Amino acid sequence: VEGFRFSTDVQVRFAETDAQGIAHHASFLVWCEVARIEWLATHTGGYRRIQEQGIEALTTAAHLRYVRAAYFDDRLTVWARCVDVRGARFRYEYAFERAGELVADGWTAHATVDRLTHRPTRVPVWFVEAVARVESGNGSGG
Amino acid sequence: VEGFRFSTDVQVRFAETDAQGIAHHASFLVWCEVARIEWLATHTGGYRRIQEQGIEALTTAAHLRYVRAAYFDDRLTVWARCVDVRGARFRYEYAFERAGELVADGWTAHATVDRLTHRPTRVPVWFVEAVARVESGNGSGG
Amino acid sequence: VEGFRFSTDVQVRFAETDAQGIAHHASFLVWCEVARIEWLATHTGGYRRIQEQGIEALTTAAHLRYVRAAYFDDRLTVWARCVDVRGARFRYEYAFERAGELVADGWTAHATVDRLTHRPTRVPVWFVEAVARVESGNGSGG
Amino acid sequence: VEGFRFSTDVQVRFAETDAQGIAHHASFLVWCEVARIEWLATHTGGYRRIQEQGIEALTTAAHLRYVRAAYFDDRLTVWARCVDVRGARFRYEYAFERAGELVADGWTAHATVDRLTHRPTRVPVWFVEAVARVESGNGSGG
Repeated sequence: VEGFRFSTDVQVRFAETDAQGIAHHASFLVWCEVARIEWLATHTGGYRRIQEQGIEALTTAAHLRYVRAAYFDDRLTVWARCVDVRGARFRYEYAFERAGELVADGWTAHATVDRLTHRPTRVPVWFVEAVARVESGNGSGG
Repeated sequence: VEGFRFSTDVQVRFAETDAQGIAHHASFLVWCEVARIEWLATHTGGYRRIQEQGIEALTTAAHLRYVRAAYFDDRLTVWARCVDVRGARFRYEYAFERAGELVADGWTAHATVDRLTHRPTRVPVWFVEAVARVESGNGSGG
Repeated sequence: VEGFRFSTDVQVRFAETDAQGIAHHASFLVWCEVARIEWLATHTGGYRRIQEQGIEALTTAAHLRYVRAAYFDDRLTVWARCVDVRGARFRYEYAFERAGELVADGWTAHATVDRLTHRPTRVPVWFVEAVARVESGNGSGG
Repeated sequence: VEGFRFSTDVQVRFAETDAQGIAHHASFLVWCEVARIEWLATHTGGYRRIQEQGIEALTTAAHLRYVRAAYFDDRLTVWARCVDVRGARFRYEYAFERAGELVADGWTAHATVDRLTHRPTRVPVWFVEAVARVESGNGSGG
């Protein structure tokens, strides 16, 4: 997959499979979250740094396309990039690969809100800067 | 919400919440599945009837839009309808309501495949007929 | 099963099964929680009433014995009773039945703590009274 | 913790937390499974090798004791050892540590069964030998 500069690996847990013998489709949404958290840990001070500023990042939309089934014990590479940061909103895009084959892709949309009131609050400047630094040169795709 | 003729209720479990104090966004994907299964149980012989014909219905895409947070113990009405049945493919659309307010909406896309080979196989006729019978008059929306 | 006066039903969700084709063993722990919540809703003002007093009930131990496999779409009756209320501690016992057959049983232990400090705090009097009222005559079993 | 020779690490996912702000207690059961799978991958040919012989290892009991809460993003060391292998049965014991502090411990019991009939079938010899090789010198504890 092109245009991604960050990836993390997940291994399909037995608890994440279902009676069709494959990874349950909701598991991919959890793995997207794992990749976002890891992106934040690598490129900023981690999600806790957002929380320490009294901010939570809510998920406002999610889109997944399943191309191939994933199986128990498969090691998947989850590519992730942060795009479209504007005001209190940003998006992440993902591609799941197994041995170089595309397994799934998708995106999630997020909004930063005040932790107590849940009112929209601008994405912290250091986050905007981290995205600019990390993702510059990426096409937004999506 | 308009255009839906079927709904089922789910109650937000404690295990489905997260440290933001709200229902985790992946839980909605599980509730979509609960609604599909219940739709099938109500309008056809249930998912097991599909399986008994050596067929599995895979999820090929999912899209969710989160409008309001859901909380522990909330009772959500999940509206569901089956649309766009063609060949080996069909979609479900969903709207989540709490006390008349829209909490989330979305859709999932599915493909019927042979249980053993995972090759595409046409949606059973009785399923096509059930959709025609139940959803006639629905706008497909999307 | 004997000695139980309360039960609630759960239906095995597809997402709760695993690649062995059966309900994943961790799902039972979630269903125990569903039964506790329902017990509280039926016999007291619900778990939210505990929370409103600035108290959380933590789980301090869990024990499950799996006798028969449960399958997708199975309707299980979860019998639950509250026992051994003392100070800041109480236990729940469970039995899972399908069509009169024992599927699993077990217990969970809990401690009430202050919501902010997580320090032990006595179980509210109205909870003690509810247990006495509901479970009197039960053997504690275990 | 003493008597363990194998450990693997898990990091608490956001999806694994609940509205109490801590890791949900059922998550620990999933992490036990992750540790067993990793134990098998390290010391034998992995769980798939068991499956390839037409055998499944069912979980017949589980016991967990929660000593301290675990939080989002915590890195936990899961110590695991296989004990009490007899006929078609074996157990695993676990201890969860965070920065040298005990967070939880417990055990799970398992039975090997024929994959199709679910009838008890002896634990494969190579598994018995792997346990003898890896765990020799361990006290069984439990």
